[in-house]
Amino acid sequence: MTIDQHSVAIVGLGLIGGSLAKDLAALHVPIIGYDADVATLDAACMEGIVQERLDGSLAGLERATIIVIAVPVSATLGVLTTARAHLAWASLIMDAGSTKRSAIAAAQSLGISERFVGSHPMAGDHRSGWSAARARLFEGATVYLCPAKDAAGGPLALARELWNALGAHTELIDAGEHDQRVALTSHLPQAASAALALTLSSAGVSLRELGPGGRDALRIAGSSPEMWTAIVMDNADAILEAMSDFEGQLGHFKVALETLDHQRLHDFFRASRNWAS
Amino acid sequence: MTIDQHSVAIVGLGLIGGSLAKDLAALHVPIIGYDADVATLDAACMEGIVQERLDGSLAGLERATIIVIAVPVSATLGVLTTARAHLAWASLIMDAGSTKRSAIAAAQSLGISERFVGSHPMAGDHRSGWSAARARLFEGATVYLCPAKDAAGGPLALARELWNALGAHTELIDAGEHDQRVALTSHLPQAASAALALTLSSAGVSLRELGPGGRDALRIAGSSPEMWTAIVMDNADAILEAMSDFEGQLGHFKVALETLDHQRLHDFFRASRNWAS
Repeated sequence: MTIDQHSVAIVGLGLIGGSLAKDLAALHVPIIGYDADVATLDAACMEGIVQERLDGSLAGLERATIIVIAVPVSATLGVLTTARAHLAWASLIMDAGSTKRSAIAAAQSLGISERFVGSHPMAGDHRSGWSAARARLFEGATVYLCPAKDAAGGPLALARELWNALGAHTELIDAGEHDQRVALTSHLPQAASAALALTLSSAGVSLRELGPGGRDALRIAGSSPEMWTAIVMDNADAILEAMSDFEGQLGHFKVALETLDHQRLHDFFRASRNWAS
Repeated sequence: MTIDQHSVAIVGLGLIGGSLAKDLAALHVPIIGYDADVATLDAACMEGIVQERLDGSLAGLERATIIVIAVPVSATLGVLTTARAHLAWASLIMDAGSTKRSAIAAAQSLGISERFVGSHPMAGDHRSGWSAARARLFEGATVYLCPAKDAAGGPLALARELWNALGAHTELIDAGEHDQRVALTSHLPQAASAALALTLSSAGVSLRELGPGGRDALRIAGSSPEMWTAIVMDNADAILEAMSDFEGQLGHFKVALETLDHQRLHDFFRASRNWAS
């Protein structure tokens, strides 16, 4: 059975769920959709992407063979709980959030972990919502896959097939290791960029005063506050550890700058350039 | 006299000086050039951008009416000192570095401040050198102009005309205020991005593991160590002040995260988004 012989239900039609819907619709996969925002769901149906709309009860989910939960990570457990009554026929249940330990725990608590694969596409944008969703968002992206310990092979193979069909490559990773890694690669840069934004804001500096380098460093500061609050609440321990390391590096730089230590400052920027190139 | 009736000498043919040379050559302005790197100077001459090459003595600089010093900020005083014997006929002497107090002080110490306009184009790239130089780099960019207190009106008008001819818009600013502002808009983001790079490097994370957001935040981490060491050494006081503010913002975030204070975390990311959009 190839991906276009499945039907996919997507709960949450924001940037990730919406982009997934657009890609799958282009592959002629029938899409069943739900979003708590009526205007979003209306748009997704009117644009012909979602063929069948569900209501908040999620009744009708049983008509899909693949279920994707693409809501803020703080809502995943609640949505899975509501969905639970309608999952009898699903071959694969997947989330798409930025943290994975809590998603796996939710699946285990609901007794669906054999068919559950946590997934996290390393794709996205500082914009959010259906209006930001677009085809081919996942092309070339890495998608982390975290099956529960008791997951069966079939659902994992199906998850791989789905993401590969969208041009992404998948990487199998333990949920705990995943959460530590993205604390470094994604959550810490987000926190740093937001703290930079607040520093500049407090100093009365506006975004248009930045050059191209500063604008790049601060682009993600414009990301969704709801999404990021949920992510950092859910991965606080790993992020706090990453922040300690970051503060240590800032501290080294600060001492070198206070003492105008040319050699140490040069070593700092050289190590940075070597890593980044 | 319009800009194409001048001849321009450019000392330092890296990203900024080289891009300036390419733009001016396209406007049929004769370019006299020097770079301490022979291969760079050879390339600039062979590509027909530089018509007349100088040697390290800078003899021949007197044949230009506009002199631009585009070297790392730590080298500006030395280059201006060497150039001093050949500046009798210059209408405008300009630097293009990222700090302005030291450039103005150098011009004053050499008795050329009446014709000196410190300039800082907010353009650039994490790449550096002649090979990174390109036409139209300054299009749409802000260029800060800092004349010395005793500067005459003519040189300032000419500096404006030159940058406007390249599509940039100029902003007059006091050198001290400039250095404080760019500590926030440019030097702090650079230090933060480099500290992020070192944090990830220490944790054994590679650049290819970042998603698009992280890659944006860390792009400038690949910038020239020589250039940035010189800049931060020259603007240490202002950068240290900006860093204290930044550490304060990181500290607020950290406390909110340690206490899982949903409201404060949301306020943090909302303030960031509001500033950035």
